[in-house]
Amino acid sequence: MRNFEFFTPTRIMFGKAMEEKAGELAVEYGNKVLLHYGKGHIKKTGLLDKVICSLEAKGVKVFELGGVKPNPEISLVREGIKICRENNIDFILAVGGGSTIDSAKAISIGVPYDGDVWDFYFKGVIPKKALPIGAVLTIPAAGSEMSKVSVITNGSYKVGFASDIIRPKFAILNPELTYTLPKWQTAAGIVDIMAHVMERYFTEEKYVDFSDRMCEGLIESMIKYAPVVMDEPSNYNARAEIMWAGAIAHNGLLGMGRIEDWASHRIEMPLSAIYDLTHGAGLSIIFPAWIRYVAKKKPGPFIKFFTRIFNIDYDFDYPESVIKTGLTMLEDFYKSIGMPVRLQEVEIDDARFEEMAQIVTVKSAQGNLLKLQKEDIIEIYKLALEG
Amino acid sequence: MRNFEFFTPTRIMFGKAMEEKAGELAVEYGNKVLLHYGKGHIKKTGLLDKVICSLEAKGVKVFELGGVKPNPEISLVREGIKICRENNIDFILAVGGGSTIDSAKAISIGVPYDGDVWDFYFKGVIPKKALPIGAVLTIPAAGSEMSKVSVITNGSYKVGFASDIIRPKFAILNPELTYTLPKWQTAAGIVDIMAHVMERYFTEEKYVDFSDRMCEGLIESMIKYAPVVMDEPSNYNARAEIMWAGAIAHNGLLGMGRIEDWASHRIEMPLSAIYDLTHGAGLSIIFPAWIRYVAKKKPGPFIKFFTRIFNIDYDFDYPESVIKTGLTMLEDFYKSIGMPVRLQEVEIDDARFEEMAQIVTVKSAQGNLLKLQKEDIIEIYKLALEG
Repeated sequence: MRNFEFFTPTRIMFGKAMEEKAGELAVEYGNKVLLHYGKGHIKKTGLLDKVICSLEAKGVKVFELGGVKPNPEISLVREGIKICRENNIDFILAVGGGSTIDSAKAISIGVPYDGDVWDFYFKGVIPKKALPIGAVLTIPAAGSEMSKVSVITNGSYKVGFASDIIRPKFAILNPELTYTLPKWQTAAGIVDIMAHVMERYFTEEKYVDFSDRMCEGLIESMIKYAPVVMDEPSNYNARAEIMWAGAIAHNGLLGMGRIEDWASHRIEMPLSAIYDLTHGAGLSIIFPAWIRYVAKKKPGPFIKFFTRIFNIDYDFDYPESVIKTGLTMLEDFYKSIGMPVRLQEVEIDDARFEEMAQIVTVKSAQGNLLKLQKEDIIEIYKLALEG
Repeated sequence: MRNFEFFTPTRIMFGKAMEEKAGELAVEYGNKVLLHYGKGHIKKTGLLDKVICSLEAKGVKVFELGGVKPNPEISLVREGIKICRENNIDFILAVGGGSTIDSAKAISIGVPYDGDVWDFYFKGVIPKKALPIGAVLTIPAAGSEMSKVSVITNGSYKVGFASDIIRPKFAILNPELTYTLPKWQTAAGIVDIMAHVMERYFTEEKYVDFSDRMCEGLIESMIKYAPVVMDEPSNYNARAEIMWAGAIAHNGLLGMGRIEDWASHRIEMPLSAIYDLTHGAGLSIIFPAWIRYVAKKKPGPFIKFFTRIFNIDYDFDYPESVIKTGLTMLEDFYKSIGMPVRLQEVEIDDARFEEMAQIVTVKSAQGNLLKLQKEDIIEIYKLALEG
């Protein structure tokens, strides 16, 4: 086990009607709040009104900035920064999914910074200050509600940035708010949540047994409840398991003491940025391809994973056989919840593999279990096409 | 799953040589530090000097208060409060195990309070302010390093108090610092860590699947590494698994969404307070007795627990049979690491069962899976004597 620092200060308010506490939570940090949200689905459901009502009841002045898209764009972030500066806003409340929270995080570090906010994402500038932010989560997936990560899209670049100073002060998680999520988004969220755990699990680090078991528990729980929510979108308990798992999957806990991988996320990013593919759908295609490629050289972590997750008997004669069986079972699971497992299914061909692999490796090789160069990543895209 | 609030702001610095960061962490909170510790074992090992050196290098003035005993006493807490007030101390650094940290927590709420500190423990007074505290952990067991709980002894009363304001700001966890722990204390710590999980696991709450699995993972990991540390006290990785599990076991995570039980801890408390029995050794006696008693009326959670933890086949004809097998395996595990499972082994007889049961129920019945009155608790003490 490696040395580590663990810090998850986000206060979670979990359960029914918790969004009514938005006002009393936000007022601890300021009286002028930027309410940041997406395309307006939350207007239709009445959530936006409820949150505004809760804020105004506490005497908070509300400024609105909607319009966050999946794969949130730098242009809207810059607009948010401008609004915050012009109005001396002291708190940002994101109402939505990971894109909205990520966008709010970018705004939060951009406001007190003299240069352009993209510097943090692309030039490695380290922010010293941030406006405090909070979140009312509506899509369990990205884990942004507790994480120190924000991913922003700028043209064909989709780049992540991480710092403890952008962790939300609080996050409101009411599973009822996810009842209206379409099947596609529900499933993509589950794939993403599982991927956050898998990125941490697939490591050569030994003696991380307790966190291995927590990882396995989370994935087993998702495999158990995913079919339930696909059939019963308003099953509170199944929605609750997924929402809570989504937060824990990415708050840092499950990666402590080990080197995480994250190649699959990086390899997926150009698919979302260029083809506007849902992140989770990109992951259900890329992750099996990555496993297929990496397991040839480093089979160990995958044998453990599939043995335990799918209760496959360990093969003492030919342990690698477990990987083949396990991969089929993982892909079957993705398919069972309507997720694609090959690029053809989402109508992406090999036309831009070279360019995408170039983007992924522009700063360095990717991954840790196996360091992947541009050529490796092209091979993984090919596997994602053909299997 | 029930509504819940989750808040664990303690920054964990985990790994080798982390105690050298005590100064830079503490100086964030103040320049006058009360260094609180136990019987002086840390003087012999050189840890105390190392911590003082780290503090003084950052210009911190150090005041010392040693002498914390297992089952920490109110008298020393009062002394600590006096020292803090007289010297305008602004931060308390506990170096030791749960007793020392619990004592530091009590001091931290006592200092800014006009009345007597026991009011918080016995009269239900709620503290509004606390000095910030930090911890350098030397005994993984109580989980006080991340928890909101402090347990203080006053005569034959041993009483717990819980509040988010006493959670340590940071905790330094270096597994190497636990190499010199005697076998008895190592084993008692493991029993305590497992008990913190079991108190949360044994509930009637359904649909807490993910947290159930995290609980099971933690206990499986302890059962795996306990024999390793008993044989190899300086095995870093085994010590690390236990130390990290100890923190997570009691920081709140594993009890989210459910009603926890805690009867076994309460029933054990008079054994520690009256007979000065090590808390973990009391738990390895009381917990099986409590299971034996409660499982007669509420077998469900125990069947699940033993089935999963010890891989016992579910008995479709007579599910309760699993409990008998499981209890034997649990007691065998405790015995294998040198822990007692009956009161006779620690030379306690039935002379004070009545008095102890009275103390335990003085304010209310105990437990949640099954509400236990005085008479129930006497029966549990009897089972702890006879099995």
